[in-house]
Order: sequence, then structure tokens, then C-alpha cells
Amino acid sequence: MVSMMAKQSSLSWHGKDPKLWLGEARTRIREKVHCSPVMTSRSLDALFGLRLFFKAENLQRAGSFKIRGASNVLWSMEDSEAQKGVLTHSSGNFAQGLALAARERGIPAYIVIPENAPSVKIEATRSYGATIRLCAASVAAREQAAEEWQKETGACFVHPYDDPLIIAGQGTAAMEFLEEIPDLDFLIAPVGGGGLCAGTVLAGLAFGSPSLTVLGAEPSGADDAWRSLDQGILLPQENPQTIADGLRTSLGRHPFDVFTRFGTQILRVEEQTIKEAMGLLEERMKLVVEASGAVPLAALRSGHSIPPGAKVGIILSGGNKA
Amino acid sequence: MVSMMAKQSSLSWHGKDPKLWLGEARTRIREKVHCSPVMTSRSLDALFGLRLFFKAENLQRAGSFKIRGASNVLWSMEDSEAQKGVLTHSSGNFAQGLALAARERGIPAYIVIPENAPSVKIEATRSYGATIRLCAASVAAREQAAEEWQKETGACFVHPYDDPLIIAGQGTAAMEFLEEIPDLDFLIAPVGGGGLCAGTVLAGLAFGSPSLTVLGAEPSGADDAWRSLDQGILLPQENPQTIADGLRTSLGRHPFDVFTRFGTQILRVEEQTIKEAMGLLEERMKLVVEASGAVPLAALRSGHSIPPGAKVGIILSGGNKA
Repeated sequence: MVSMMAKQSSLSWHGKDPKLWLGEARTRIREKVHCSPVMTSRSLDALFGLRLFFKAENLQRAGSFKIRGASNVLWSMEDSEAQKGVLTHSSGNFAQGLALAARERGIPAYIVIPENAPSVKIEATRSYGATIRLCAASVAAREQAAEEWQKETGACFVHPYDDPLIIAGQGTAAMEFLEEIPDLDFLIAPVGGGGLCAGTVLAGLAFGSPSLTVLGAEPSGADDAWRSLDQGILLPQENPQTIADGLRTSLGRHPFDVFTRFGTQILRVEEQTIKEAMGLLEERMKLVVEASGAVPLAALRSGHSIPPGAKVGIILSGGNKA
Repeated sequence: MVSMMAKQSSLSWHGKDPKLWLGEARTRIREKVHCSPVMTSRSLDALFGLRLFFKAENLQRAGSFKIRGASNVLWSMEDSEAQKGVLTHSSGNFAQGLALAARERGIPAYIVIPENAPSVKIEATRSYGATIRLCAASVAAREQAAEEWQKETGACFVHPYDDPLIIAGQGTAAMEFLEEIPDLDFLIAPVGGGGLCAGTVLAGLAFGSPSLTVLGAEPSGADDAWRSLDQGILLPQENPQTIADGLRTSLGRHPFDVFTRFGTQILRVEEQTIKEAMGLLEERMKLVVEASGAVPLAALRSGHSIPPGAKVGIILSGGNKA
């Protein structure tokens, strides 16, 4: 197994053992985020023929795991650096996570949001006290608006996923998960930019049992991670077609490095199974999970090699519907 | 306060201290039901100006609190009595709760369901192993079908709410709630047949702080409990008009006795606020709660005399949407 191989070598990632990266992140953000509950469903166990465990990050503060990474970055900053505030561009959960984390740190948050973003997400971000600037919907417009605003404010730019501190922060979800259910056989996280899944891979190596396999799951209509790993080079997302709006982003360089280094496999999921998985989570578990958060469960509906009866952990990444 | 008065007298209900009724029920069903989580939301606290605690019985087995009372009745039965099975008529959550409880007791469950019941509820009840007989939609047809079937099978009829053992079983939700949050100032349960709310009143008297007030909440369009208490006699539900399908039933005699004896107040709730409360629970707490389960939160939107900052417990009674 790939994870065994990795465990046998001495592990270092960006100059530090992943155990240290994650342990420090956990200590830093422990009082800032919920330890979200791990939930089970006998009826879903029967339906899938597996023993399923769900880490309900949809119940996390600001509605997704994103506050973990954001808090880890913000509470790593020196006061002198932090006081000018933080800035990002995001139309989704990271905007809310960073806005809430910044409010708790007592510093300004400047968020560039594309003007076609759902108004409910803009309002939620504003409600956490962020200052918002709308821009045209293109990536170029977002980056330009962010760059100009950063020059005006002197705020620190925070990347939503392509940053070791963000990845370590997101990995604390899996770290908590493995503390509660130490003997998981599989652990599946969705892959968009890759921050959550890369953090999950690192947590699995650091805290999982020797037989744990961490898998990523992404929509077939936005499968840049699968294609990148297949080709061995980082390929951009091109014209993504999926209801899982959180997974339309391009895979980041740091997550790509983690996946290639530790041989992470990505499962691809069809749109129809994503919708079915959302329905099952609503009907059987009474949980509101956004499309992106339902992708790992959907992956268990497609062809996969997980043996019957295996203990499978699933990260329900968020609950913020547009 | 009414609850003070009751505490000062020596309490007996159907020949036993409510503490005993509830304690026995708890012991009997502990391994059969979930101790559902108590959840909080800072954003709802801010919105309502209260400190809110939610007992998430929508996450209970079979999707509502109903399995508590059903299990309490079933595990009180002698083997000789139980082996012929149990029978009820229900179009809703009690059908599912009784079916699952009977499967766990290893005995047959016979459920009469009106033919206009949502097919998803019929299927869910069947999936728990119950035998189902459909009947015409009237109350008379339900009762007649149940009576005939009971004669055929010799099964024991179990009433969904008008039974001290059912009431004690449903009261274990509030008992758990008060163990976790002992100093609640208010505790609100929805009122349909009254089993859950009556059990909550008893649990409040037995285990709440001296200053706890238990309140019922029902739709204005199905306000037989409010009218019955106002008039001092048990009045039937007449032509109920509400989306809260679980609360269209008529108040039972035993719950009516509990409410009159302990001076329970009922809050009435408009339809629009029920829909808004469901939306808030979905958006802010990522929880699927059926209309009946959202009625207590909705009651906090109408005129009420709960002072700002009070600690208010809310029972989210179920999550089974039609």
C-alpha cells in the first residue's frame, strides 16, 4: 500500500514532520473552531454494505471546514503583520471562513467577490464583518482587483488552499476524525483546490492506522486533479461542468505535490450520483450538505475497490448552498 | 411560577413520582435510542437575543422522538404478550418509530396507514419490517381497520400518544436535555397529540431547575390544545389547517390532564413563521427539520414574554418530510 510506503520512510513536509504541522495547527485553532461531530447511519450502512462514519463539517462555524485553515493562518501572524488585515478573492466558503476568523482575530478582512456570486453568500460574508468589493467574474478581474486593493490597504493576501498553513489547518478535521475513530480503513475527502484533501492525506499519514488509505473524490466534470495525477503534471481546470460549485477551482501546486508524493488516488463522480448522495444525506441523516460535500459519499456509488464491511470515513465538507 | 408550585407539593402521576416514570423509561430504552446531540448556533442566538439550545431529535433513529415512547411500551411488555405483535394506525412518525422498535424487540408490527399518506412514509415504515394495511383516509376508517386487524392477529394496540408509558418515553428526550443543560430557563416542545409535550412537562418538574418553565407550541391553524386549556375541557381538533402535519392530531386525554394539572402554557404560531423557522434551521444550522419540529423556534418569533438573554431549550422533534 502507498500509505505503508510513506510511513516506512522518514516523513518530512516543508521541513517538518506532518505530525508537528498538524499538532501546531490544532493547538492554535482549538478554541476557534468546533470539533464537529462524527455521525453514523445504520440505514446508509445497510444501503452501501460498509461501516460509514461522517465528519460533519457542514455543522462547522461559518458552514464549512474553511475556517480551520483561515484560523491557522491568521493566528500564525505577528500582531504587527496582522493589524493591516487580510485579503482574499473568493465567491464561496473561504470568504465566509476568512471573514469570521478575521473578526475573531480583531483585524479587517477585505474580500473580492465576483459580481455573479449568489447574494446569500455575499450577505453571509458581510454579516461576519468583512469589507467586500465586487469585481467582474473572470479570474483575471479577481486577481487584478485583489492586487489593487492590497496595494491600497497593505493587507496580507491569504490563498484559499495553496499554502502549507492552510493545508495543515484543513487537516485538523481528519486529525479529530482519527482521534475519534482510529481504525478507519478508508478516508475520503472532496478535491477542489486540494487543500482539504492534502491536509487529510497528511493527517492520515501522521495519525491513521498503517492500513488506512486516504482517497480524494472529484466530479467527472471538473477532474483536473485526476488528469494531473494521471499525466504527472499540474493541469489547469478547464471549463468545469458540475453542480459542486466548491470543486470548480484548479488544483493547487502544494496539494498536487502532496498527492504525487504520497500516491493519493482520486475517484471521479458523475453528476447524477452527487444529487442522489445529497438526497440520501438529507433523507437518512437529516443533514443539509452542499453538493461539494456530498461528492465523497457519491464516490461510493461508482466503481471503486473498497471491500464490503470496510470502515469508511467521509468528510462532509460544508453545508452552504447557493 | 407554576412549576414552583408543583415542586412544592409532593408529586405523583398515575401512582408514581414522575422521576420514577422517567428513570425507568430511560433505563429501559437507553440502548435502543440515540442520546441525540444538543446543538447551538451563535448566529441564531444573535438573531433572537436569547441563548438557544436545540435537542436534535430529527437526528434520532427513524427520524423523530417517536421511537422513545414506542420502545418504552414494547420493552415493558411480557414476552407472552409481545409475541403476538403490536398494532397501531398512523400516517406519520409513530408508524416508523413503532415499526423499528418492534423489529428490535423481534416481534411483528401491524400498521394501518391511510391511503393518502405520502408514499415515502409508507416505504420508510415498510423498510423497518412492518406489515402495512392501507385504509380510507377518515378517522373512522382507520379505527375500524385497526380493530378488525387486531381481532385477526391478537396483536396489542399501541396508542401513539395517549398512554402514560408513551408519555414517559417521550419525556426521556427532555430528561437527557436537562442532564446536559441543567439550568435552562425555558423549554419548548411542539404539541400535536401532546405526548412529547406532556413528557417534557414531567421531565421539567422532575429534573429541571426550580425556575424552569416548560411551554408548548402549536400552529394557530390547529390550536385545539390552546382552546382546550382556555375552556378547561378537552376539545377536539376541527379541520386543522397547517403545514405541520404531525400536529394536526387531537390532543389526548392524558396530556390534557398533565397540562391542566401543572398549568402548562401553549404558544400559538402562524404558518409563515413556521416556514421561516424551517429556513433558519436549514440555513444557519444545516439541519433538516420537518414543519412540526420547527414550531417551537417559530414560537420565539411571535409575541411571547421570554426575557432577552434567557436560556431557552428547544426540542427539534423530527426530520421526516413528506
